[in-house]
Amino acid sequence: MSKPGLPSGTRDFGPEVMLKRKYITGNIEEVFRLHGFRPLETPALENLSTLTGKYGDEGDQLIFKILNNGDYLAKADAHLLEQRDSKGLVSSISDRGLRYDLTVPLARFVVMNRDKIAFPFKRYQMQPVWRADRPQRGRYREFWQCDADIVGSYSIWNEADLVTVYDEVFQRLNLPVEIRINHRAIFDAFAAHLGGNEALARFMQLIDKADKIGFDGVLQELTNAGIANAAALWTFLHEVNDLHANHAKMDALRNHPHADAELMQPALAALHDIFNAVKTSNTLRLDLSLARGLSYYTGCILEVVPQAEALPEGFSIGSIGGGGRYDNLTGVFGLKDVPGVGISFGLDRIYDILEASNRFPELAGSDVRVLVCAMDAAALPVGFSLAASLREHGISAELYPGAAKIRKQLDYANARNIPFAAILGETELEQGVVTVKDLHSGTQESYPIQTIHDHLHLWQF
Amino acid sequence: MSKPGLPSGTRDFGPEVMLKRKYITGNIEEVFRLHGFRPLETPALENLSTLTGKYGDEGDQLIFKILNNGDYLAKADAHLLEQRDSKGLVSSISDRGLRYDLTVPLARFVVMNRDKIAFPFKRYQMQPVWRADRPQRGRYREFWQCDADIVGSYSIWNEADLVTVYDEVFQRLNLPVEIRINHRAIFDAFAAHLGGNEALARFMQLIDKADKIGFDGVLQELTNAGIANAAALWTFLHEVNDLHANHAKMDALRNHPHADAELMQPALAALHDIFNAVKTSNTLRLDLSLARGLSYYTGCILEVVPQAEALPEGFSIGSIGGGGRYDNLTGVFGLKDVPGVGISFGLDRIYDILEASNRFPELAGSDVRVLVCAMDAAALPVGFSLAASLREHGISAELYPGAAKIRKQLDYANARNIPFAAILGETELEQGVVTVKDLHSGTQESYPIQTIHDHLHLWQF
Repeated sequence: MSKPGLPSGTRDFGPEVMLKRKYITGNIEEVFRLHGFRPLETPALENLSTLTGKYGDEGDQLIFKILNNGDYLAKADAHLLEQRDSKGLVSSISDRGLRYDLTVPLARFVVMNRDKIAFPFKRYQMQPVWRADRPQRGRYREFWQCDADIVGSYSIWNEADLVTVYDEVFQRLNLPVEIRINHRAIFDAFAAHLGGNEALARFMQLIDKADKIGFDGVLQELTNAGIANAAALWTFLHEVNDLHANHAKMDALRNHPHADAELMQPALAALHDIFNAVKTSNTLRLDLSLARGLSYYTGCILEVVPQAEALPEGFSIGSIGGGGRYDNLTGVFGLKDVPGVGISFGLDRIYDILEASNRFPELAGSDVRVLVCAMDAAALPVGFSLAASLREHGISAELYPGAAKIRKQLDYANARNIPFAAILGETELEQGVVTVKDLHSGTQESYPIQTIHDHLHLWQF
Repeated sequence: MSKPGLPSGTRDFGPEVMLKRKYITGNIEEVFRLHGFRPLETPALENLSTLTGKYGDEGDQLIFKILNNGDYLAKADAHLLEQRDSKGLVSSISDRGLRYDLTVPLARFVVMNRDKIAFPFKRYQMQPVWRADRPQRGRYREFWQCDADIVGSYSIWNEADLVTVYDEVFQRLNLPVEIRINHRAIFDAFAAHLGGNEALARFMQLIDKADKIGFDGVLQELTNAGIANAAALWTFLHEVNDLHANHAKMDALRNHPHADAELMQPALAALHDIFNAVKTSNTLRLDLSLARGLSYYTGCILEVVPQAEALPEGFSIGSIGGGGRYDNLTGVFGLKDVPGVGISFGLDRIYDILEASNRFPELAGSDVRVLVCAMDAAALPVGFSLAASLREHGISAELYPGAAKIRKQLDYANARNIPFAAILGETELEQGVVTVKDLHSGTQESYPIQTIHDHLHLWQF
């Protein structure tokens, strides 16, 4: 029998990892819910008609397709079969695929339930998605997305709300971050100056490479591309970006002689409101070089990166969150004028940073407080009752299921990272006591079983 | 553009349903963790070599298969293609399938990580599984399983632990249940009396139909099957089953003249320990007609059913939980002698019962406590701050994102089942107060914004 394995690009999450992941998702979820976001879950299986055509040609190729049940070849096109046309045949042998992201299912849900939903619809969703990408370090075929969106409202207060969500989550996770914000309309205000919308699109495409090729690299490419005024604008944006105060940056933008004031003004007003609303946060920064997702986003765009000093020496990682406003969530399904704004968290990267920088709380990967150890068969029922009474007081406790040697039981406790042992041997039973051993310090003391609930502080956090 | 839909047998879980599902899973998870069970998650995608051959021929047909990526027909067998042999072709165009249950992935995980796991391994897992079954009322193609297992220990204290888990979960859910227990060895003790193991297997198969065809139906079928002593044994078990006290039933079994005492005794001793350990529970009942899963389970078997008086008139539903001991979890993957014992919860059925019998707590489907309503643009930033300060005190609050008419904002609060509105209009801003409206009673009163945290009891549960 061959040894079992996992499909490439997939992972098991064992208990220690799961508990740490739950520490992250639990904090995110709590903040979501405090802010009025409510959970949605959609099926892993979606009709291919729902998925196809939403992610571009390349995306379509990366959707996992499910073989139809039963005699799936019965209705297959004979010619395509004969030609071994894998691509052409898909639609006749597969009706369903695996969820590729959480946005298309949200759009589908909104369209299907639009008469029942109270708008603005604030939902969060934390579920796995699947992409038939080539697996590599940090890229998986099955991975979790964690999104919060507000659907059906144009108000800028939604953006402010989402910035606050980011801020609070990373404060809870004790991870210093920078939240970068930019606004699509700032670019739009320079479209005429650059020579039109096509030139602008190319401009945004090129400056989005700044992370990889740097300021000078972008400058070179902009020059090569022959876009009017592009190099000067890029230099201007770069200089403004270096200003410390967000409001100073906005003043500089406002004063640019070739910016279209009518297009620029609403964006600056929106940013002004957001900066004022979250004024207690010093993590929000207007970043004029931020152009991610601008083919998709129509208003504010957001990106979260860990502060450099939060990372261990030599540890490099990209953004750990991003989002923005999109004007037409459900247009692909024929429902027009439904705006939305959303953010997402990069769970895997957040996990990797917290792990690498030792930011998980001491017992995030642990769980049980007390292992009850019975030294002989007679002590097992007593231990079973003791564990039950500890649990009644909210203290997680398990009985080692058998009177094994104490060494073996304590090894188990250590392997499980259980901080306390409650030992019941012959002497303890005779005296009606339990010996409580602190497995960290090695100290131990005996307490009457009858009044053990008077000593609960012993094993609490 | 055609209207989007869901694949047959799948469901969206909207916010109200999700919150109620989380009420159930949250309670289950809390009990699991108090008992020392820790979370495991395995990928939805498994190699077909892991899945195939584990669920019988019928099960293999119900596994959802994923089409290989890229040019999946390139390596397909020409003859099978020509013959349109759908079944034969699968293995050459599909390497992966969707998780069919949580037990085979657990076995795979244990085999792959046996050197790292501290046994006994107590894990819980709550994840969806997929089966290409014909969808019908209460049967889905994507549904959640919720399992807790203890792997690597033969001790009966594990069974006692699991019974207690059942008991505590359903107490928390305020759902009166009966937990039925039986033991495989009780049947084994009658194998010789019935004429051997084959006769016993047939006997167990037939009595497992008692739920459907009743005592007399089983009696008839046993008689027709021509198994020696079968009718008399069934009658005996049925009479013993009617005794009130579990210990009286065990005495009767022990005294049966044709039971193999050597086989029977360990089972009765095990049951004796379990009944003593969970003596505070009056929900555990020895049920000698319980034969579910006996082709699989090798020791205790468990089943949970709601008490009849807990169900609404005319509401009929099967078991809402089940489990038992199996001796050879990992044998299918070549690792011998790894015993296990586990239970599972029927989430969908539990949900249906709680819903039909109005057992969800009043606000299980609700979430946000306070909607902050700004009556004009000037009130929006004040409202944003007010919502933030409520959240700092642990009270979920959202600002309606825009100065809409009060009627519209309160309609939204009602649709969302939000119990309180905090209203900020021109008068409130002038006086530095906020008007708190109880949307249930309709009463309202004003409080100074500065000291609103002195009145938090207002909106707490």
